[in-house]
Amino acid sequence: MEYFPAALEKLVEQFARLPGIGGKSAQRLAFHVLSLPEEEALKFAAAIVDAKKNIHCCSICQNLTDQETCTICASPKRDQSTICVVAQPRDVLSFERSREYNGVYHVLHGVLSPLNHIGPDDIRLQEQVKRVAAVQRYNGDYGGRADLK
Amino acid sequence: MEYFPAALEKLVEQFARLPGIGGKSAQRLAFHVLSLPEEEALKFAAAIVDAKKNIHCCSICQNLTDQETCTICASPKRDQSTICVVAQPRDVLSFERSREYNGVYHVLHGVLSPLNHIGPDDIRLQEQVKRVAAVQRYNGDYGGRADLK
Repeated sequence: MEYFPAALEKLVEQFARLPGIGGKSAQRLAFHVLSLPEEEALKFAAAIVDAKKNIHCCSICQNLTDQETCTICASPKRDQSTICVVAQPRDVLSFERSREYNGVYHVLHGVLSPLNHIGPDDIRLQEQVKRVAAVQRYNGDYGGRADLK
Repeated sequence: MEYFPAALEKLVEQFARLPGIGGKSAQRLAFHVLSLPEEEALKFAAAIVDAKKNIHCCSICQNLTDQETCTICASPKRDQSTICVVAQPRDVLSFERSREYNGVYHVLHGVLSPLNHIGPDDIRLQEQVKRVAAVQRYNGDYGGRADLK
């Protein structure tokens, strides 16, 4: 890439760091961004900054949200005693699309994978344990329980 | 995507507008950007802004550059009388990688495609005609010529 300006090389590098984007695709995407009207390209950059600055994990279920708690945890219509444990935020989307599930979620942000050195402390498992314990205490000394589906 | 915050939806939309990126890939890329450290995500956004603001077409060959003229046109070592006409800036890269070509380029930023209503005025053809005419005048009333390869 030494025949292209540094700013273009940097943009190609950034695209090439994305998962599933090889060198040629990165080049193609960088050229595409340069061919966009300035307003459109700046919108793209702003979307990255906005998403990164405003989105964090829900304090209850660890799903992505721009509020303190996500819309699902905050909804009075959802059955808070049934927690569906999923690996990634995108799994929540899959369940929600089915329109069949009315409980809440817990997002682990990963799965246990000893071969890849990913243990219980590398995913949001502790938050899940604490949450279930809190629900159990609330329901009175194991008198009730949070169903884990 | 109504179960995710607006800022995330916007980011997915922006990725989905890129060529060759479908809905699922866009979602995957957006989640990846959110999982990056803030510094890395902001670097990505800055690379888009920098590239868009600083890169434009070389005033001679229409290749992408951050200078008034690109490094190839500005190089005294290149044979300015031989112009290789290419469709896209990435084609310049392919030729340069061969390390065999020592002339200069003209980038059309497209190809004629009557079925897609892309005519001579939609690509950088006029710039090429003017450039060749200027070289011919310089070489003295068609006494010399710019070879078009």
